[in-house]
Amino acid sequence: MKKYLSLNKKELARLPEGRVMIQIKRLTPKEKKGLVVVITGNGKGKTTTALGIALRACGHQMRVSIIQFMKGDLYSGEWDGVKRMDCPIELIPTGKGFCGIQGNPYPFQEHRRNAQEAIELARQRIDAGEVDLLILDEINNALHLNLVDLDQVIELIRDKPPWMHLVLTGRDAHPKIIEMADTVSEIHEIKHAYREGIEPQPGIDY
Amino acid sequence: MKKYLSLNKKELARLPEGRVMIQIKRLTPKEKKGLVVVITGNGKGKTTTALGIALRACGHQMRVSIIQFMKGDLYSGEWDGVKRMDCPIELIPTGKGFCGIQGNPYPFQEHRRNAQEAIELARQRIDAGEVDLLILDEINNALHLNLVDLDQVIELIRDKPPWMHLVLTGRDAHPKIIEMADTVSEIHEIKHAYREGIEPQPGIDY
Repeated sequence: MKKYLSLNKKELARLPEGRVMIQIKRLTPKEKKGLVVVITGNGKGKTTTALGIALRACGHQMRVSIIQFMKGDLYSGEWDGVKRMDCPIELIPTGKGFCGIQGNPYPFQEHRRNAQEAIELARQRIDAGEVDLLILDEINNALHLNLVDLDQVIELIRDKPPWMHLVLTGRDAHPKIIEMADTVSEIHEIKHAYREGIEPQPGIDY
Repeated sequence: MKKYLSLNKKELARLPEGRVMIQIKRLTPKEKKGLVVVITGNGKGKTTTALGIALRACGHQMRVSIIQFMKGDLYSGEWDGVKRMDCPIELIPTGKGFCGIQGNPYPFQEHRRNAQEAIELARQRIDAGEVDLLILDEINNALHLNLVDLDQVIELIRDKPPWMHLVLTGRDAHPKIIEMADTVSEIHEIKHAYREGIEPQPGIDY
């Protein structure tokens, strides 16, 4: 298998004879605007969507920071995936897993301390203005569980540079955060393999 | 900014003094099973989710093939994003944009011919068994628009090697495909920046 089989513009235009020639259009907004995007809901794919945004931003040569709230105790493929990307990208898992979930051994205060550290990291990224895309993974959930405060999240959104994209993932997004966002998607679970007793599978579930 | 700031296992465990030591768990399924995942709905994030799955799979050193139905006439960041991934990954846009959408100049038969080529490519990937994750982007939509046939999609799902993950994205997923899938997420649009007159922005919208 060839390492990179993605077709470039030239290859795409070189079609077999008899074919309609394809014109590849490129969008370029007149006004560049950093968007606030919220990905919420109970379905699979919130963090995954944020990772896809990161991959796409990488294609645009953007600088990306991913700060994971409430994650860090359970290995997930993206920790190594981002290391294989030839882009200015960082991924920092700050948490100790899902607070209040059965089997999680850490006390609330420890989770809150971790989440507050994550807020501090996000604050630094926003103040420094050195990334084009900041992803705060599971921050909605962290807010819902009182690991961070509504005011803290509002301030991050208000103070970000106007050109910086900010993506906030996690279930139970706060109505105020939804109100402040430009684009909000809600992911619903229609069915999930684990309900049929299928164990989590690498590449899909973690 | 450091090029790779992702923390590895050792770094994650090296916490400031006074902290609870964190144990990083690694899931390993007793039985490896290739899942059929459907990402559908009218909201933003279906292709994006699939790209996130690819990034995560890349962290697991999996081989990935992404075949894009109905896409190829409009530049999107992932075309360059995957080139920057140090993984065995291919991305092939086969289409000429969205059939039936205002402004798309290509006739139905041209769209159908492209989609049939994409089915053929998918078929080859499934028969060769050389990828661990096969993403058929917008195939649900292509089926809904009769660019491909239900039987063709059913056969791909039935004939894939049992260890291969298959991800099918696109709105209006067929009930039969949902029935055959292991995991199905539906993405709903709660709000979208373009409704406020904000132009599509690189890194988020394409």
